[in-house]
Amino acid sequence: MRGGIVWLTGLSGAGKSTLATAVARELATRRPVELLDGDDIRTFLSAGLSFSRPDRDTNVQRIAYVARLLAKHGVLVFVAAISPYRETRDAVRALSEAAGHPFIEVYVNAPLETVVARDVKGLYKKAHAGEISSFTGVSDPYEPPLHPEVEVRTDMSSQADCVSRIVAIMAAHALVHGL
Amino acid sequence: MRGGIVWLTGLSGAGKSTLATAVARELATRRPVELLDGDDIRTFLSAGLSFSRPDRDTNVQRIAYVARLLAKHGVLVFVAAISPYRETRDAVRALSEAAGHPFIEVYVNAPLETVVARDVKGLYKKAHAGEISSFTGVSDPYEPPLHPEVEVRTDMSSQADCVSRIVAIMAAHALVHGL
Repeated sequence: MRGGIVWLTGLSGAGKSTLATAVARELATRRPVELLDGDDIRTFLSAGLSFSRPDRDTNVQRIAYVARLLAKHGVLVFVAAISPYRETRDAVRALSEAAGHPFIEVYVNAPLETVVARDVKGLYKKAHAGEISSFTGVSDPYEPPLHPEVEVRTDMSSQADCVSRIVAIMAAHALVHGL
Repeated sequence: MRGGIVWLTGLSGAGKSTLATAVARELATRRPVELLDGDDIRTFLSAGLSFSRPDRDTNVQRIAYVARLLAKHGVLVFVAAISPYRETRDAVRALSEAAGHPFIEVYVNAPLETVVARDVKGLYKKAHAGEISSFTGVSDPYEPPLHPEVEVRTDMSSQADCVSRIVAIMAAHALVHGL
């Protein structure tokens, strides 16, 4: 089966990694999948990069490079990364599609007040206290996708609902069969 | 067929990329292969890194991370990278083997005088003139492998001979069939 890239974008704490993990797990018995998590990638590929716009873009481009390499070999790659800039996401989409790999943009949407209230990693508290600078949604911009293949509202829908909507859009793009 | 990593190490100009390309091309119809070239990787994954030891090590570790991701999905990955430090190569071998991927170290050996005479990219001339600092073999060390799976002498053997020796060692490790 052909490879592809499922790119989950959204605020920190919106549920990108959780959903990507759940969808990847559901599909793992049916086709080769891989999950590239923004936090892991910062450790392995982008240690030393800051959260300035150029460094964020570099990080996103590196993830996309690795994702394309895997997609080329038939892997369905889930990327969970804030990737706050629309232009950068559109650029990696263009490179992916030019290489012949479908690119599914998933907007993992939860209002800022929701993710601040969750504050799973305690980062929003630190960002509001000024202990972290350039924090997306607080002191740095997040540009929502204008035309994502699918948008899920993790504050309003159950995880199971979000997962099935993402799986459905992949089926519509012939990235998974037998549903 | 299972994935694996074929790591070609040696001086700049020794013939790593040439051999990796030739071997990958020979095998491409028989199994999934990918070539990660040190120069390309510097562009896509390691722009901004210097040629200091820590930065070289970071570069090598990034290549190895991507190679393991691909090997995990059944790809035979050829890495062509100077990777001058023995300890660093041994470390990436250990990580690869721990992940269950065979690691074939290929020492692409040509004496310094040979690669200086070839000087394909004109880099040795610049290094000797002091225009490039920390240049492996000139102003930076190269530590040859002590126990590579295979050593090829590109100054003494034909390209075809080197290619068949590398393919043979891969067959011995069950990374290619039907030879």
